Amino acid sequence: MAVNLTPVSADQLAIIDGIELSVAEAGIKKANRKDVLVVRIDKGNTVAGVFTQNRFCAAPVQISKNHLDAGVQIRALVVNTGNANAGTGEDGRQRALSVCQALAGELDCAVEQILPFSTGVILEPLPADKIIQALPTRRPANWAEAAEAIMTTDTAPKATSRTLEIDGQKVSITGIAKGAGMIHPNMATMLGFVATDAPVTRPVLEQLVKEVADLSFNCISVDGDTSTNDSFILVSTGKSAAPRIDSVNHPAYAVLKAALVDVATELAQAIIRDGEGATKFISVKVEGGRSVAECKDVAYAIARSPLVKTAFFASDPNLGRLLCAIGYAGVSDLDVDRLSLYLDDVLVACNGGRNPEYKEEDGQRVMSQSEITVRVVLGRGAAQATVWTCDFSYDYVKINADYRS
Amino acid sequence: MAVNLTPVSADQLAIIDGIELSVAEAGIKKANRKDVLVVRIDKGNTVAGVFTQNRFCAAPVQISKNHLDAGVQIRALVVNTGNANAGTGEDGRQRALSVCQALAGELDCAVEQILPFSTGVILEPLPADKIIQALPTRRPANWAEAAEAIMTTDTAPKATSRTLEIDGQKVSITGIAKGAGMIHPNMATMLGFVATDAPVTRPVLEQLVKEVADLSFNCISVDGDTSTNDSFILVSTGKSAAPRIDSVNHPAYAVLKAALVDVATELAQAIIRDGEGATKFISVKVEGGRSVAECKDVAYAIARSPLVKTAFFASDPNLGRLLCAIGYAGVSDLDVDRLSLYLDDVLVACNGGRNPEYKEEDGQRVMSQSEITVRVVLGRGAAQATVWTCDFSYDYVKINADYRS
Repeated sequence: MAVNLTPVSADQLAIIDGIELSVAEAGIKKANRKDVLVVRIDKGNTVAGVFTQNRFCAAPVQISKNHLDAGVQIRALVVNTGNANAGTGEDGRQRALSVCQALAGELDCAVEQILPFSTGVILEPLPADKIIQALPTRRPANWAEAAEAIMTTDTAPKATSRTLEIDGQKVSITGIAKGAGMIHPNMATMLGFVATDAPVTRPVLEQLVKEVADLSFNCISVDGDTSTNDSFILVSTGKSAAPRIDSVNHPAYAVLKAALVDVATELAQAIIRDGEGATKFISVKVEGGRSVAECKDVAYAIARSPLVKTAFFASDPNLGRLLCAIGYAGVSDLDVDRLSLYLDDVLVACNGGRNPEYKEEDGQRVMSQSEITVRVVLGRGAAQATVWTCDFSYDYVKINADYRS
Repeated sequence: MAVNLTPVSADQLAIIDGIELSVAEAGIKKANRKDVLVVRIDKGNTVAGVFTQNRFCAAPVQISKNHLDAGVQIRALVVNTGNANAGTGEDGRQRALSVCQALAGELDCAVEQILPFSTGVILEPLPADKIIQALPTRRPANWAEAAEAIMTTDTAPKATSRTLEIDGQKVSITGIAKGAGMIHPNMATMLGFVATDAPVTRPVLEQLVKEVADLSFNCISVDGDTSTNDSFILVSTGKSAAPRIDSVNHPAYAVLKAALVDVATELAQAIIRDGEGATKFISVKVEGGRSVAECKDVAYAIARSPLVKTAFFASDPNLGRLLCAIGYAGVSDLDVDRLSLYLDDVLVACNGGRNPEYKEEDGQRVMSQSEITVRVVLGRGAAQATVWTCDFSYDYVKINADYRS
């Protein structure tokens, strides 16, 4: 089902010194599948995260934010699938804390040093006892197995690595993510974890995680639904001999950021490639806007439109639907006569109407591809933004009509 | 396919004195189907309209707005299906004007006295010649046939009437509408025409059309796509002996408005009942908000969510998806602990989590109905708003993946 999503194997993923992974089978929703991941992090690390803007943010999101705000050294992340622990009120917070407490006891640290994460069905009580009982049964895992352990409706694990040099010292980055539905930014992904051994101070890491998210996970949409559990966590173990990045003006900041954006973008795009029911990967690039915000508004209007997405599914160059979505994107003084619309290299519309040279067979050729770029040139400024999305198929409906049963 | 949409027959629809209807077969998209409607209006009428906010508003929308702004007496509406004449630039405006010109010649009036409307595929040149050639071939029609002549993906014509008394004088109202996809307000419907014989001055009619639209057509969503061609036109022929309504403070204003809202709401709900692929009719009622705007934001977040809509299709009480949509509706200081969520009479969630008394079978019972009310009590004010929507099925994808072919 997934669109050009290359399978990853453990030997393609860099080990991050200072991180120890382990997985367990707690039988939260289904028996005999890995549904708990523990990421233990050596002392000396820094951790920062960005979380969903959804007001019904899940209990583990609330607790992870509190624990990060407490300013203590984080020692482990504990992740479960099969239950989101969202819409569960005070009882949900207590259940999440009880899992943290159990792991803190084992690791001999304070409960605030554990960050919990959950993903799965909303509005059901978290079976915390099952998770606590499974914790001692967990076994060491590599990054590929960790990526597998956090899957829900995902059809493939999502993981990638980069290695680079900073001041002649080797630095490694490995990230994993999960998500296929309920995907829309702020944060966009259900869960994303990226770890590096590059030493970065906490305030710089906090800035870095926001900048990286805005250029990657916050640029994707499967269905316009912003999840209750979205979290993107960046871990710096500090084990590399590279210099500690203690300022956004540090010369290595931009180098590390570029590599992190690269990793996070690949993971974010992997979520779209594995979007529920996806048969096509669509890049929507909007240029020539007055601000990045209006470019994103136009890009998301296209990326969210069920009519546009079903036309992509049908490989039907019914491109009026693209103009329609641009028109209602909320750019109130948009001059449609100055706008150009391209499908890959094909100029479809300009001067407020169809390009006189446009031929249906050219549109058809691009629409039949599995990867398509929609490019909108607004002709009113220099800002630009790109959003990645997928088409809307029978299988999206099937997957989401069947999900709980 | 349509959800509890009762077929209308001509004898259920009130004739409006001062209106003459006729239809023709121009073969715009398909042969042998009525695809042109002409609504001739006697002198002495007033006409007002509200139109799509889409920046790519269609050529006929631009021209109808100009003609209404010219302040001349309107003599006829001319409507075609099969082609939206949208995204067609200056050439599209010329083609629409040529149709108006042909009809103006026949009716011996100025081109500004004709309002054109088009609905159908976007980005294709309007075959104006076919329409102009078909105009002399048209035959008299009743309101039921008129409703049929403006259908596109609609599975049933949409029309309704009311009669009332104002100062002891009989007043009649008849309205028709079309639309099944690309439905989201501002304006919400593709096309809606409501005529009454009640005498209303032009400034009052202009106020009335806005107020009526806001309570009816602007409260529906099939897919979140705001069309390029949405138009809602209110015609007063003034033929009733009832007193002329010349002020919004006139005692009959509220009486007529209530009847018009009734007609427009039935038409708007008919569009939802006939929503593309719809199997369920959902009312989303949000109460206890600080403003109508925030109530509408919450209602539309629910009404637009593909995850919520597929759960309704599946009759699956996966109600966490409702909380999730409420949470991302953009009410930034929403206190989820004060919110209550009902499915018909079943209290699903309160105090930030699931109602302890809630039973799955109660949720299941309501979800299995063909008509469902979702009620959200925000607990922060006295404002409220209701939005009507439908579920999201395989057939929505099928209809929209197949539409052009």
